[in-house]
Amino acid sequence: MATESVELTGHIVDSLLLAKVLDAIVDAGLEYDLEEVEIGRTNTDPSRARITLQGEQAELDQLIDDLQVHGVNRVGVGETRLVAADRDGVLPAGFYSTTNLATDVLVDGTWEPVENPEMDCAIVVGDGSVRTVPMHRLREGDRVVVGSGGVRVHAPAKQRGGSVFEFMSSEVSSEKPKALIIAELAGRIRAAHDAGEKVLAVCGPAVVHTGGAPDVARLVEAGWIDVLFAGNGFATHDIESNVLGTSLGISVAEGTSVEGGHSNHLRVINEVRRHGSIAAAVEAGYVVGGAMAACVRRSVPFVLGGSIRDDGPLPDVITDTAAAADAMREHIPGVSVALMLASTLHAIAVGNCLPAGVETFCVDINQAVVTKLADRGSHQAHGIVTDVGPFVHQLADTLCGAG
Amino acid sequence: MATESVELTGHIVDSLLLAKVLDAIVDAGLEYDLEEVEIGRTNTDPSRARITLQGEQAELDQLIDDLQVHGVNRVGVGETRLVAADRDGVLPAGFYSTTNLATDVLVDGTWEPVENPEMDCAIVVGDGSVRTVPMHRLREGDRVVVGSGGVRVHAPAKQRGGSVFEFMSSEVSSEKPKALIIAELAGRIRAAHDAGEKVLAVCGPAVVHTGGAPDVARLVEAGWIDVLFAGNGFATHDIESNVLGTSLGISVAEGTSVEGGHSNHLRVINEVRRHGSIAAAVEAGYVVGGAMAACVRRSVPFVLGGSIRDDGPLPDVITDTAAAADAMREHIPGVSVALMLASTLHAIAVGNCLPAGVETFCVDINQAVVTKLADRGSHQAHGIVTDVGPFVHQLADTLCGAG
Amino acid sequence: MATESVELTGHIVDSLLLAKVLDAIVDAGLEYDLEEVEIGRTNTDPSRARITLQGEQAELDQLIDDLQVHGVNRVGVGETRLVAADRDGVLPAGFYSTTNLATDVLVDGTWEPVENPEMDCAIVVGDGSVRTVPMHRLREGDRVVVGSGGVRVHAPAKQRGGSVFEFMSSEVSSEKPKALIIAELAGRIRAAHDAGEKVLAVCGPAVVHTGGAPDVARLVEAGWIDVLFAGNGFATHDIESNVLGTSLGISVAEGTSVEGGHSNHLRVINEVRRHGSIAAAVEAGYVVGGAMAACVRRSVPFVLGGSIRDDGPLPDVITDTAAAADAMREHIPGVSVALMLASTLHAIAVGNCLPAGVETFCVDINQAVVTKLADRGSHQAHGIVTDVGPFVHQLADTLCGAG
Amino acid sequence: MATESVELTGHIVDSLLLAKVLDAIVDAGLEYDLEEVEIGRTNTDPSRARITLQGEQAELDQLIDDLQVHGVNRVGVGETRLVAADRDGVLPAGFYSTTNLATDVLVDGTWEPVENPEMDCAIVVGDGSVRTVPMHRLREGDRVVVGSGGVRVHAPAKQRGGSVFEFMSSEVSSEKPKALIIAELAGRIRAAHDAGEKVLAVCGPAVVHTGGAPDVARLVEAGWIDVLFAGNGFATHDIESNVLGTSLGISVAEGTSVEGGHSNHLRVINEVRRHGSIAAAVEAGYVVGGAMAACVRRSVPFVLGGSIRDDGPLPDVITDTAAAADAMREHIPGVSVALMLASTLHAIAVGNCLPAGVETFCVDINQAVVTKLADRGSHQAHGIVTDVGPFVHQLADTLCGAG
Repeated sequence: MATESVELTGHIVDSLLLAKVLDAIVDAGLEYDLEEVEIGRTNTDPSRARITLQGEQAELDQLIDDLQVHGVNRVGVGETRLVAADRDGVLPAGFYSTTNLATDVLVDGTWEPVENPEMDCAIVVGDGSVRTVPMHRLREGDRVVVGSGGVRVHAPAKQRGGSVFEFMSSEVSSEKPKALIIAELAGRIRAAHDAGEKVLAVCGPAVVHTGGAPDVARLVEAGWIDVLFAGNGFATHDIESNVLGTSLGISVAEGTSVEGGHSNHLRVINEVRRHGSIAAAVEAGYVVGGAMAACVRRSVPFVLGGSIRDDGPLPDVITDTAAAADAMREHIPGVSVALMLASTLHAIAVGNCLPAGVETFCVDINQAVVTKLADRGSHQAHGIVTDVGPFVHQLADTLCGAG
Repeated sequence: MATESVELTGHIVDSLLLAKVLDAIVDAGLEYDLEEVEIGRTNTDPSRARITLQGEQAELDQLIDDLQVHGVNRVGVGETRLVAADRDGVLPAGFYSTTNLATDVLVDGTWEPVENPEMDCAIVVGDGSVRTVPMHRLREGDRVVVGSGGVRVHAPAKQRGGSVFEFMSSEVSSEKPKALIIAELAGRIRAAHDAGEKVLAVCGPAVVHTGGAPDVARLVEAGWIDVLFAGNGFATHDIESNVLGTSLGISVAEGTSVEGGHSNHLRVINEVRRHGSIAAAVEAGYVVGGAMAACVRRSVPFVLGGSIRDDGPLPDVITDTAAAADAMREHIPGVSVALMLASTLHAIAVGNCLPAGVETFCVDINQAVVTKLADRGSHQAHGIVTDVGPFVHQLADTLCGAG
Repeated sequence: MATESVELTGHIVDSLLLAKVLDAIVDAGLEYDLEEVEIGRTNTDPSRARITLQGEQAELDQLIDDLQVHGVNRVGVGETRLVAADRDGVLPAGFYSTTNLATDVLVDGTWEPVENPEMDCAIVVGDGSVRTVPMHRLREGDRVVVGSGGVRVHAPAKQRGGSVFEFMSSEVSSEKPKALIIAELAGRIRAAHDAGEKVLAVCGPAVVHTGGAPDVARLVEAGWIDVLFAGNGFATHDIESNVLGTSLGISVAEGTSVEGGHSNHLRVINEVRRHGSIAAAVEAGYVVGGAMAACVRRSVPFVLGGSIRDDGPLPDVITDTAAAADAMREHIPGVSVALMLASTLHAIAVGNCLPAGVETFCVDINQAVVTKLADRGSHQAHGIVTDVGPFVHQLADTLCGAG
Repeated sequence: MATESVELTGHIVDSLLLAKVLDAIVDAGLEYDLEEVEIGRTNTDPSRARITLQGEQAELDQLIDDLQVHGVNRVGVGETRLVAADRDGVLPAGFYSTTNLATDVLVDGTWEPVENPEMDCAIVVGDGSVRTVPMHRLREGDRVVVGSGGVRVHAPAKQRGGSVFEFMSSEVSSEKPKALIIAELAGRIRAAHDAGEKVLAVCGPAVVHTGGAPDVARLVEAGWIDVLFAGNGFATHDIESNVLGTSLGISVAEGTSVEGGHSNHLRVINEVRRHGSIAAAVEAGYVVGGAMAACVRRSVPFVLGGSIRDDGPLPDVITDTAAAADAMREHIPGVSVALMLASTLHAIAVGNCLPAGVETFCVDINQAVVTKLADRGSHQAHGIVTDVGPFVHQLADTLCGAG
């Protein structure tokens, strides 16, 4: 086990640098000891933190390398090591890879500023200059900084005060491996159940259109969903796809529009109205499969909230919106995990009612929708930008066994 | 087998009505005979078409029902049938479901216009009025039109001439079952190979970030991809994820950022540059798995086109863009299916070079990207709005057997 | 005035070619005479159309050039004209610009197929070959086809029958000059009023957040909006921004979040509830400006439909969704133009109730939302992908004079 | 001037709470003094901060109210004040508006937990219970907490450690008033010039398609843009729209497609190639207006980087991508403000080369593009989700006077 100390100076609290650095340390699985934190008393005072890290030397080296992006330097930066390139366009192994921060290199005992900071370059020292060089411009003989010894970076300043601009954030990305996300989500659901807590699913109609309704049914049948909130659209298309094999007039089995399609949902709603309720229609054998039938059979409570665009609606839909929200509130105590599946309207409605501690996962193919949910102030909302059908299919496979 | 005749009047060519009607007939799997087509000679003359349909009576009834949305009427509309509702809020079985077109009902031998056209309603006749009624407002005793007898609709007019507005089109939708799309795409790929034609894959870096690179490798290994076009990003992250287990510093196995991540891709590029080419790096054992290694091993030709944002780049990247496009052109003859996988830049570049007959499938999670590709004038481009990682995984399972 | 005849062969109805061609002719402002239309009687029979065009020769040449993209040829294709390039990389003036369709060139009395169809290239004839050449690869002396004489194209085939794939369509684009769209929309609104018809505005909360509520107020004050539909969000934030100068706790004047912001909307709703109605709050002087106050003062009727996500709500909100839709239906007769401004939920709800003849304009920054509205089957819906605040500002300037 | 002390306990550094609180204070224009900060030495130790605020009492009250959302409490929480509702559904003025955090109320000297935390509600104390009540469920006589005295909240916990999930962030929103953003951006540009620094514009082709090219020209003519980077598309369409009045075959003046449109850009590129350079074409009078001509006349340097999708290209385009990036690097020293206008490819390329200190503003209608730019690690990138044409028009009006 080795020990290293790093330090960070500047507006490290209000520019979030300290938080990001601690995050990176924890993500790397290492222990830290925050020594000598001086927080500026006012807006203009800089702050300073010194952190001691413990771990394998190789891990420490990697981590410290990575922390430089945030403006962190090793305490005692060591010696600059220069290695000459042995051919054009290829860097020496272990080359120092630049950040875009203002950077100094220790040359003959003096800190020389890098002339043209640019990220993802090498640093070449020579002819009285210290400059970044992109890989393809390197020439044989150029003396390249290797390792992070003798290099220090300056933390970025943060411009403060009443900005109308938004700092861009990349925290909701569609470019993540989904298999890992599903595995971890399944773990959270299992943990909630192990702790005797409830899992809530909020479903939009796109769950049915993308073929995910049978998977929601599997999750309900297997006991993984304890309460379900939706609107007239989800319930209607779920029932329609089971009674008639279509969803909005699109054949779920063949993906093509079918004859008579445009009024299918109306006929299904009308028949369920004739039965008086979804439960009655299930008991009478009119509805056999699908997510709503699974809820009826498993006695999983559901609330269908009305919306002004509804056709029909189904007899279970609570058309008074204040009453519908109140009905949802009855089921929230005990919920610790909420899945918002391709639902904008109901997801926002439910998000407004949840206590801060409920972990919320918003799944939608449209990044703008995922971001919008966050605008409503939920504290623990995770965004997953993906196609909901395959997602819920894989989630059901993970929790229920491949179907 | 029964026979029915329908007719359609108005601007049926320039408002695309005739084409949509023929589409609906073919989609329903029925035969048609286009009799008595009169096309207006000038812009202001109306046109008229009479179509004879053959099929099972039930199918014909369904289809004719559906065709009414486009303004089609049965020749000889038959008798109006009215059934009184037996309870509030529930329609008689077989109720006529309205379109939003101007509509007339034959009442006592006279065509009476429906007062308030609205779609997805019933038509109630009584008290000297004919009006649409939404399901929930129906009262016991209301006389409701059942079946389509005695009902005719008027085709929508099209406003013509130099409009700056765009008619909305819903043809690129994320709300379709993906399993069907994949099955059909796999069929096209098999058909191309059976016909001795080539399949081209154009891959963007998000294929790697979403975990799809191993699936592209499976498709290459199994011989389903005959030529691959990409840029520095796809190739670099594919190699990085195999050499170091990361992609852009994100652990592909764990989905978390790893130490030293931000410079991983540079180090990988640098080493491949040292080897001189991707093929040399594969032969030397530096790169073992992934899509690029599969191409090298299976002798599947690839072209890597440079872009101004490239780091490095890899030695195989053709940095001159005119030369890169020319290199791609060499491989296009014989291609009949092109898969554009989460690639904007290269997809547009390749789309510009393809003859009209090549079937092109554009897969991207961002609908705007999919639409943009169509702006470039490709004739046979199909849009699939989905998450590319799970999509290519399922495609590889379908073509290569579950992996 | 000159006359030219063109012809088009293939699946010209069901692949929409004929409709597109007639569109292009009308857009060019020319007259046409559709002679000799033969429509295939069944799905597999090809069709043929011959069209006579009249206009200035220059216009005709331009149009015919453009129609070739759709597979149209001049009747009597004329002579091939070849001009040698006088330098590398520069084409002779008037060069024939290729489509990506299969193409033939008349060489010495024989139709020779172009070897490698690719769009936006020139055609070079020589050495026994006819091939497309991109501009940069042209060499001095290459013989290039100039003009469209001696060139014919083959209309693209359409693959028919129950496809799960969607043809991509670029009809909803954000890349159009907005000034023109606004001018034309203003014209439609003026024309509706001149004809004694009503203009309906459906407003979402983003109208307020992007600064457009004062412009909606101007349009109401000046009599351009005859009826307004919205939800609790739009009305609340419109009133909040007038009473407190904030919208969702963001200062509308300064764009920064203000203290006490998160509960502002609740306090405003509570005060309006105390007054009993928006009209009472306006009359009492609690609400002075904004769109809702303008409606009250100008006696423009409004309907506020409840939704399950509502806080409060305002006393005018109809919380029963079926009742709210019914209230909207009362105001629809007489409407001929509907503006859907950044509203998803209410736009879909209203779209479902409108007759086909109402021209509907959907304005939203999110293309997916605009497309989604089309999925609901409205016939005359135009999509405008733009930022609603500046859009409604410019619209108000155009109709009311710069404010 | 009044003084108040507040405190915050928990994982206040790594859950970013402290940074958000300091942000809110500075945004409110108040001074703070950070006393008694104790930062936990390790990952599991909680931290604590006590902050003294100075300002007008009303401002302080507002701010402290708002800070509660982040878990901040007044030191010395004061007395609980209860006021009975005087009618159903209307709260007493000054009611305490809840957060969704775990909350306690001081009742008869004891801290009682609120049973059902939910945001945007009131707190009702009575019958031995303390609970949140949504406004519409309040009944006359209910005793409601007024003011924040006697109320304390608990800071949200942060779940730490290697999560694959992303916390949602709403920092790139399209729902902001654009007039304010433009005013502030104009201020930054003026400030850069006052300081002798350079302003860089990176332009994509959508700038031309949305009608913004003349505004870029105005900004160049008036000296506000010091260097311009773009690709073949922007320069071609800018020149095309000036020479022929079209852009991609769309009439910029009328918004309709024009005859001969599809090859316009090729003919324009060809003529500029004949002249040898854009500058030569401007000097020869072939190109008179537009952004590129303005650059030539004002001697504003530009770099056009090639891309694989280019037609032609224009003679000034650097087709070697490594050389193009190097050419851009030459112009970066001295730049302090960078505007990325509807450009994905070049914006990423340029962002990779900029030092951290350069303020970067990314304007695009597509939120995914704006977010993607952030994925590349630029430190000071601000996202503005809007329609680029109207945006640049308003920016030019602000800086150059209404045109």
